Amino acid sequence: MTDRHYELWPIGWVESPLLDPEAAPKQGNEGSPEAWLTLDERFSEALRDLEVGAEVLVLTWLDRAQRDVLVVHPRDNPANPLKGVFSTRSADRPNPIGLHRVQILVIEGTRIRVRDLEAINRTPILDLKPVLDRRLEG
Amino acid sequence: MTDRHYELWPIGWVESPLLDPEAAPKQGNEGSPEAWLTLDERFSEALRDLEVGAEVLVLTWLDRAQRDVLVVHPRDNPANPLKGVFSTRSADRPNPIGLHRVQILVIEGTRIRVRDLEAINRTPILDLKPVLDRRLEG
Repeated sequence: MTDRHYELWPIGWVESPLLDPEAAPKQGNEGSPEAWLTLDERFSEALRDLEVGAEVLVLTWLDRAQRDVLVVHPRDNPANPLKGVFSTRSADRPNPIGLHRVQILVIEGTRIRVRDLEAINRTPILDLKPVLDRRLEG
Repeated sequence: MTDRHYELWPIGWVESPLLDPEAAPKQGNEGSPEAWLTLDERFSEALRDLEVGAEVLVLTWLDRAQRDVLVVHPRDNPANPLKGVFSTRSADRPNPIGLHRVQILVIEGTRIRVRDLEAINRTPILDLKPVLDRRLEG
Protein backbone atom coordinates (compact mmCIF):
# COMPACT_ATOMS: atom_id res chain seq x y z
CA MET A 1 0.00 0.00 0.00
CA THR A 2 1.43 3.33 -1.00
CA ASP A 3 0.23 6.74 0.10
CA ARG A 4 -1.14 7.33 -3.38
CA HIS A 5 -4.42 9.18 -3.62
CA TYR A 6 -6.81 10.37 -6.31
CA GLU A 7 -8.80 13.57 -6.72
CA LEU A 8 -12.53 13.75 -7.33
CA TRP A 9 -14.16 16.83 -8.81
CA PRO A 10 -17.89 17.37 -8.29
CA ILE A 11 -19.84 17.49 -11.56
CA GLY A 12 -22.79 19.09 -9.76
CA TRP A 13 -24.90 19.20 -6.63
CA VAL A 14 -28.11 17.77 -5.24
CA GLU A 15 -30.99 20.17 -4.62
CA SER A 16 -33.39 18.48 -2.26
CA PRO A 17 -35.89 19.39 0.46
CA LEU A 18 -33.95 16.92 2.67
CA LEU A 19 -31.82 19.07 4.97
CA ASP A 20 -31.16 16.92 8.02
CA PRO A 21 -28.89 13.88 7.59
CA GLU A 22 -30.32 12.31 10.75
CA ALA A 23 -33.88 12.50 9.46
CA ALA A 24 -33.17 11.50 5.84
CA PRO A 25 -34.37 8.12 4.53
CA LYS A 26 -31.73 5.35 4.58
CA GLN A 27 -32.53 4.24 1.03
CA GLY A 28 -34.13 5.91 -1.96
CA ASN A 29 -37.31 3.85 -1.85
CA GLU A 30 -37.98 4.64 1.81
CA GLY A 31 -39.99 7.81 1.35
CA SER A 32 -37.44 9.99 -0.46
CA PRO A 33 -38.80 13.16 -2.05
CA GLU A 34 -38.13 14.29 -5.60
CA ALA A 35 -34.87 16.17 -6.04
CA TRP A 36 -32.87 18.04 -8.67
CA LEU A 37 -29.43 17.06 -9.91
CA THR A 38 -27.91 20.39 -10.89
CA LEU A 39 -24.93 19.68 -13.11
CA ASP A 40 -22.31 22.14 -14.19
CA GLU A 41 -22.92 23.41 -17.71
CA ARG A 42 -19.52 22.30 -18.91
CA PHE A 43 -20.82 18.70 -18.73
CA SER A 44 -23.85 19.25 -20.97
CA GLU A 45 -22.40 17.11 -23.77
CA ALA A 46 -21.87 14.21 -21.35
CA LEU A 47 -25.55 14.09 -20.44
CA ARG A 48 -27.06 14.74 -23.85
CA ASP A 49 -28.32 11.14 -24.25
CA LEU A 50 -30.14 10.87 -20.91
CA GLU A 51 -33.88 10.36 -21.28
CA VAL A 52 -36.96 11.04 -19.20
CA GLY A 53 -38.22 7.79 -17.68
CA ALA A 54 -34.81 6.12 -17.62
CA GLU A 55 -33.34 4.75 -14.43
CA VAL A 56 -29.77 5.80 -13.73
CA LEU A 57 -27.19 5.32 -11.02
CA VAL A 58 -26.07 8.51 -9.29
CA LEU A 59 -22.72 8.48 -7.52
CA THR A 60 -22.29 11.10 -4.80
CA TRP A 61 -19.65 12.16 -2.28
CA LEU A 62 -21.07 11.80 1.24
CA ASP A 63 -19.13 14.73 2.61
CA ARG A 64 -20.41 14.48 6.16
CA ALA A 65 -19.24 10.88 6.59
CA GLN A 66 -16.56 9.70 9.03
CA ARG A 67 -13.79 8.00 7.08
CA ASP A 68 -12.07 6.24 9.98
CA VAL A 69 -15.07 4.10 10.93
CA LEU A 70 -14.70 0.35 10.16
CA VAL A 71 -17.72 -1.14 11.96
CA VAL A 72 -21.20 0.31 12.50
CA HIS A 73 -24.57 -0.56 13.96
CA PRO A 74 -26.60 -1.03 10.73
CA ARG A 75 -29.19 1.68 10.11
CA ASP A 76 -27.80 3.66 13.07
CA ASN A 77 -29.74 1.40 15.40
CA PRO A 78 -27.72 0.46 18.51
CA ALA A 79 -29.86 -2.68 18.83
CA ASN A 80 -28.29 -4.03 15.61
CA PRO A 81 -24.98 -5.85 16.24
CA LEU A 82 -21.84 -4.14 14.91
CA LYS A 83 -21.06 -5.00 11.30
CA GLY A 84 -18.05 -4.33 9.07
CA VAL A 85 -18.81 -1.29 6.89
CA PHE A 86 -18.07 -3.19 3.65
CA SER A 87 -21.15 -5.31 4.46
CA THR A 88 -23.34 -2.24 4.94
CA ARG A 89 -24.44 0.84 2.99
CA SER A 90 -23.37 3.12 5.87
CA ALA A 91 -22.10 6.54 4.76
CA ASP A 92 -19.25 6.11 7.25
CA ARG A 93 -16.49 4.21 5.39
CA PRO A 94 -12.96 4.90 4.09
CA ASN A 95 -14.16 6.34 0.75
CA PRO A 96 -17.70 7.63 1.33
CA ILE A 97 -19.12 7.28 -2.18
CA GLY A 98 -22.90 7.11 -2.27
CA LEU A 99 -24.63 4.93 -4.87
CA HIS A 100 -28.26 5.76 -5.65
CA ARG A 101 -30.63 4.30 -8.21
CA VAL A 102 -33.12 6.94 -9.35
CA GLN A 103 -35.60 7.56 -12.14
CA ILE A 104 -35.41 10.65 -14.36
CA LEU A 105 -38.62 12.71 -14.30
CA VAL A 106 -37.65 15.96 -16.06
CA ILE A 107 -34.62 17.26 -17.93
CA GLU A 108 -34.17 21.05 -18.17
CA GLY A 109 -30.79 21.82 -19.71
CA THR A 110 -28.24 20.53 -17.20
CA ARG A 111 -30.82 20.16 -14.41
CA ILE A 112 -32.35 16.74 -13.96
CA ARG A 113 -35.33 16.07 -11.72
CA VAL A 114 -35.33 12.57 -10.21
CA ARG A 115 -37.42 10.33 -8.01
CA ASP A 116 -36.11 8.23 -5.08
CA LEU A 117 -32.97 10.11 -4.06
CA GLU A 118 -32.20 9.92 -0.33
CA ALA A 119 -29.15 12.24 -0.53
CA ILE A 120 -29.51 15.51 1.35
CA ASN A 121 -29.41 19.02 -0.07
CA ARG A 122 -25.99 20.19 -1.36
CA THR A 123 -24.54 16.66 -1.63
CA PRO A 124 -21.81 16.73 -4.33
CA ILE A 125 -22.49 14.59 -7.42
CA LEU A 126 -19.59 12.61 -8.90
CA ASP A 127 -20.98 10.58 -11.78
CA LEU A 128 -24.06 9.26 -13.57
CA LYS A 129 -24.12 5.77 -15.06
CA PRO A 130 -26.75 3.81 -16.96
CA VAL A 131 -28.26 0.78 -15.26
CA LEU A 132 -27.11 -2.32 -17.14
CA ASP A 133 -29.63 -4.91 -18.20
CA ARG A 134 -27.58 -7.82 -16.97
CA ARG A 135 -28.99 -8.92 -13.64
CA LEU A 136 -30.74 -5.54 -13.38
CA GLU A 137 -27.88 -4.06 -11.45
CA GLY A 138 -25.37 -1.33 -11.22
CA MET B 1 -19.55 25.31 -9.07
CA THR B 2 -16.56 25.80 -6.85
CA ASP B 3 -13.12 24.35 -7.33
CA ARG B 4 -13.70 22.05 -4.40
CA HIS B 5 -12.31 18.55 -4.64
CA TYR B 6 -12.19 15.37 -2.58
CA GLU B 7 -9.47 12.84 -1.96
CA LEU B 8 -9.80 9.11 -2.46
CA TRP B 9 -7.46 6.66 -0.80
CA PRO B 10 -7.15 3.15 -2.23
CA ILE B 11 -8.18 0.43 0.23
CA GLY B 12 -6.38 -2.19 -1.88
CA TRP B 13 -5.57 -3.40 -5.36
CA VAL B 14 -6.80 -5.88 -7.95
CA GLU B 15 -4.59 -8.86 -8.76
CA SER B 16 -5.71 -10.24 -12.10
CA PRO B 17 -4.27 -12.07 -15.09
CA LEU B 18 -5.77 -9.23 -17.18
CA LEU B 19 -2.84 -6.98 -18.10
CA ASP B 20 -3.91 -5.18 -21.26
CA PRO B 21 -6.74 -2.61 -21.00
CA GLU B 22 -7.41 -2.91 -24.74
CA ALA B 23 -7.91 -6.66 -24.54
CA ALA B 24 -9.87 -6.74 -21.26
CA PRO B 25 -13.59 -7.62 -21.29
CA LYS B 26 -15.96 -4.64 -21.26
CA GLN B 27 -18.14 -6.12 -18.54
CA GLY B 28 -17.62 -8.73 -15.84
CA ASN B 29 -19.81 -11.37 -17.46
CA GLU B 30 -18.03 -11.18 -20.81
CA GLY B 31 -15.34 -13.75 -20.14
CA SER B 32 -13.60 -12.18 -17.16
CA PRO B 33 -11.18 -14.40 -15.27
CA GLU B 34 -11.12 -14.87 -11.51
CA ALA B 35 -9.16 -12.21 -9.65
CA TRP B 36 -7.99 -11.33 -6.14
CA LEU B 37 -8.99 -8.21 -4.24
CA THR B 38 -5.97 -7.58 -2.03
CA LEU B 39 -7.03 -5.19 0.71
CA ASP B 40 -4.77 -3.41 3.13
CA GLU B 41 -4.69 -5.13 6.52
CA ARG B 42 -5.78 -2.00 8.32
CA PHE B 43 -9.26 -2.57 6.83
CA SER B 44 -9.67 -6.13 8.14
CA GLU B 45 -12.42 -5.13 10.60
CA ALA B 46 -14.39 -3.47 7.78
CA LEU B 47 -14.58 -6.73 5.81
CA ARG B 48 -15.12 -9.16 8.67
CA ASP B 49 -18.77 -9.83 7.73
CA LEU B 50 -18.21 -10.65 4.05
CA GLU B 51 -19.15 -14.22 3.15
CA VAL B 52 -18.15 -16.72 0.49
CA GLY B 53 -20.88 -16.98 -2.13
CA ALA B 54 -22.16 -13.44 -1.61
CA GLU B 55 -22.38 -10.97 -4.47
CA VAL B 56 -20.85 -7.57 -3.76
CA LEU B 57 -20.26 -4.32 -5.61
CA VAL B 58 -16.61 -3.37 -6.03
CA LEU B 59 -15.81 0.30 -6.67
CA THR B 60 -12.47 0.95 -8.36
CA TRP B 61 -10.46 3.90 -9.62
CA LEU B 62 -9.88 3.54 -13.36
CA ASP B 63 -6.52 5.24 -13.29
CA ARG B 64 -5.83 4.98 -17.01
CA ALA B 65 -9.01 6.83 -17.97
CA GLN B 66 -9.16 10.21 -19.74
CA ARG B 67 -11.09 12.63 -17.56
CA ASP B 68 -11.75 15.32 -20.17
CA VAL B 69 -13.79 13.08 -22.49
CA LEU B 70 -17.53 13.89 -22.63
CA VAL B 71 -18.70 11.73 -25.57
CA VAL B 72 -17.48 8.31 -26.74
CA HIS B 73 -18.17 5.63 -29.29
CA PRO B 74 -19.76 2.96 -27.06
CA ARG B 75 -17.61 -0.14 -26.56
CA ASP B 76 -14.72 1.61 -28.34
CA ASN B 77 -16.35 0.76 -31.65
CA PRO B 78 -16.13 3.64 -34.17
CA ALA B 79 -19.21 2.22 -35.91
CA ASN B 80 -21.31 3.13 -32.84
CA PRO B 81 -22.55 6.75 -32.89
CA LEU B 82 -21.05 9.11 -30.30
CA LYS B 83 -22.86 9.05 -26.98
CA GLY B 84 -22.62 11.22 -23.84
CA VAL B 85 -20.45 9.42 -21.28
CA PHE B 86 -23.15 9.60 -18.58
CA SER B 87 -25.20 7.25 -20.79
CA THR B 88 -22.33 4.77 -21.09
CA ARG B 89 -20.09 2.70 -18.83
CA SER B 90 -16.98 4.05 -20.54
CA ALA B 91 -13.94 4.38 -18.26
CA ASP B 92 -13.35 7.81 -19.82
CA ARG B 93 -15.45 10.28 -17.79
CA PRO B 94 -14.87 13.18 -15.37
CA ASN B 95 -14.60 10.94 -12.29
CA PRO B 96 -13.53 7.49 -13.54
CA ILE B 97 -15.02 5.29 -10.83
CA GLY B 98 -15.55 1.70 -11.90
CA LEU B 99 -18.55 -0.25 -10.61
CA HIS B 100 -18.34 -4.03 -10.76
CA ARG B 101 -20.70 -6.70 -9.48
CA VAL B 102 -18.76 -9.82 -8.48
CA GLN B 103 -19.24 -13.01 -6.51
CA ILE B 104 -16.94 -13.92 -3.60
CA LEU B 105 -15.26 -17.32 -4.07
CA VAL B 106 -12.60 -17.42 -1.33
CA ILE B 107 -11.65 -15.23 1.64
CA GLU B 108 -8.09 -15.52 2.99
CA GLY B 109 -7.49 -12.85 5.61
CA THR B 110 -7.74 -9.56 3.73
CA ARG B 111 -7.49 -11.22 0.29
CA ILE B 112 -10.75 -11.98 -1.47
CA ARG B 113 -11.01 -14.11 -4.60
CA VAL B 114 -13.87 -13.12 -6.89
CA ARG B 115 -15.53 -14.15 -10.13
CA ASP B 116 -16.53 -11.80 -12.98
CA LEU B 117 -14.16 -8.87 -12.49
CA GLU B 118 -13.16 -7.12 -15.73
CA ALA B 119 -10.73 -4.68 -14.02
CA ILE B 120 -7.11 -5.11 -15.02
CA ASN B 121 -4.17 -5.98 -12.77
CA ARG B 122 -3.16 -3.26 -10.25
CA THR B 123 -6.44 -1.34 -10.49
CA PRO B 124 -6.93 0.55 -7.20
CA ILE B 125 -9.94 -0.53 -5.11
CA LEU B 126 -12.01 2.18 -3.40
CA ASP B 127 -14.92 0.47 -1.70
CA LEU B 128 -16.98 -2.69 -1.31
CA LYS B 129 -20.76 -2.53 -0.86
CA PRO B 130 -23.42 -5.18 -0.40
CA VAL B 131 -25.93 -5.66 -3.22
CA LEU B 132 -29.33 -4.52 -1.97
CA ASP B 133 -32.32 -6.77 -2.43
CA ARG B 134 -34.55 -4.04 -3.78
CA ARG B 135 -34.71 -4.40 -7.55
CA LEU B 136 -31.51 -6.52 -7.39
CA GLU B 137 -29.38 -3.47 -7.96
CA GLY B 138 -26.40 -1.54 -6.74
